[in-house]
Amino acid sequence: MVLAEATQRAIEQLVYEWARAVDENRLEDLAGLLAEDGEYKVASRYNLDRALPLAVIHTRSRSQLRDRITSLRVANIYEAHCYRHLVSGVQVIGEADGAFEVRSNYAVIRIMEHDGASSIFSTGEYRDSVVFEGAAPRFRRRHVVFDSKAIDTLLVYPL
Amino acid sequence: MVLAEATQRAIEQLVYEWARAVDENRLEDLAGLLAEDGEYKVASRYNLDRALPLAVIHTRSRSQLRDRITSLRVANIYEAHCYRHLVSGVQVIGEADGAFEVRSNYAVIRIMEHDGASSIFSTGEYRDSVVFEGAAPRFRRRHVVFDSKAIDTLLVYPL
Amino acid sequence: MVLAEATQRAIEQLVYEWARAVDENRLEDLAGLLAEDGEYKVASRYNLDRALPLAVIHTRSRSQLRDRITSLRVANIYEAHCYRHLVSGVQVIGEADGAFEVRSNYAVIRIMEHDGASSIFSTGEYRDSVVFEGAAPRFRRRHVVFDSKAIDTLLVYPL
Repeated sequence: MVLAEATQRAIEQLVYEWARAVDENRLEDLAGLLAEDGEYKVASRYNLDRALPLAVIHTRSRSQLRDRITSLRVANIYEAHCYRHLVSGVQVIGEADGAFEVRSNYAVIRIMEHDGASSIFSTGEYRDSVVFEGAAPRFRRRHVVFDSKAIDTLLVYPL
Repeated sequence: MVLAEATQRAIEQLVYEWARAVDENRLEDLAGLLAEDGEYKVASRYNLDRALPLAVIHTRSRSQLRDRITSLRVANIYEAHCYRHLVSGVQVIGEADGAFEVRSNYAVIRIMEHDGASSIFSTGEYRDSVVFEGAAPRFRRRHVVFDSKAIDTLLVYPL
Repeated sequence: MVLAEATQRAIEQLVYEWARAVDENRLEDLAGLLAEDGEYKVASRYNLDRALPLAVIHTRSRSQLRDRITSLRVANIYEAHCYRHLVSGVQVIGEADGAFEVRSNYAVIRIMEHDGASSIFSTGEYRDSVVFEGAAPRFRRRHVVFDSKAIDTLLVYPL
């Protein structure tokens, strides 16, 4: 698919900004990357392939995602850690009515605070639909499809 | 090296498409990314540095690669698993007679189906020669140069 | 931030070239990617967040970096190994007086020569300031901010 370079670039930067916002613990910035009625969902490839509905996280609007982040900040108890995202292969594979269908691969490394242990926490694919509000790209849908059936203990931060 | 942006982008997308085709188990799509007489080879850096001929996979045309995929589909017995590619740093380092010399880094994470265990399966460099057939880029040569002498058991899918 | 595409691309390629120069053991090429008075520093996020001065590597000019590489070549004793960089999400987040503020994520996989064991050696963020000398981009500052407090034994090669 041949796209205007500026469009491709803007979409790519949206994908990168999400990853960096998580890694730098600017979780409050994530909501602004979602469209007002945007959907953010984290589910296994196993479930998606079988159309099973269960998801680890499923928010259906910007406000819901904001709620989720707030609850994480004030209510969750977990061992201190951070993520590091590697995201590659951003591809725009289709377009309809101004919404771009986008794919990319990710791996998230989790680094524990107390001993510095690093491990592959999750790998998978982002299946996004991106719309432009003026010049600014936003996720209308962001599906995180993770590869492994085993997801270690609690998923604290968004992927 | 300064390239037309559209050329750089098209080459990059070719590299990304190969990775995603493997990860999404669309192996039959790989042959179409190779030129008719394209070469696909997977060999260790150790062997390549010493000009030793042994390769793990070595196909010399699109048809040979297609055969290899077919045999994998119908004849191979292996434990169910999938790959996740991270590819980064796509660089066009030269051009001669319409063929672009391209480098990129990869890491492939392997995820086992039965228990979801994820591990670094292979890392290395792609050393590609890319030609254009009309507007479509194809690999005339794709050498996968893997870093580690130890490659776990069987290499089932192409890297 | 909206940039001329050629500028974004040149900065990206500078970031990729550093990674590939390390992975291909062309360490002598690194000095040329740094500005004459460029700073290269490797420090933990823990220390940086607390403004603690300790760094694992800290060179303040191209010549100092060159010295460091030479000493590594002639004086250091270490077990043979190589790195493989994955770098993703190159973002230009600001510009002032012709210097571009750039961020990217990295993971470095270390592959030991003797048994081929691969492991996540380091993950973190590059915090770069890039200037142009004519058409050629150079690092005026390259801060490697690694995530983990635990860094395995000796850091031999630059990250």
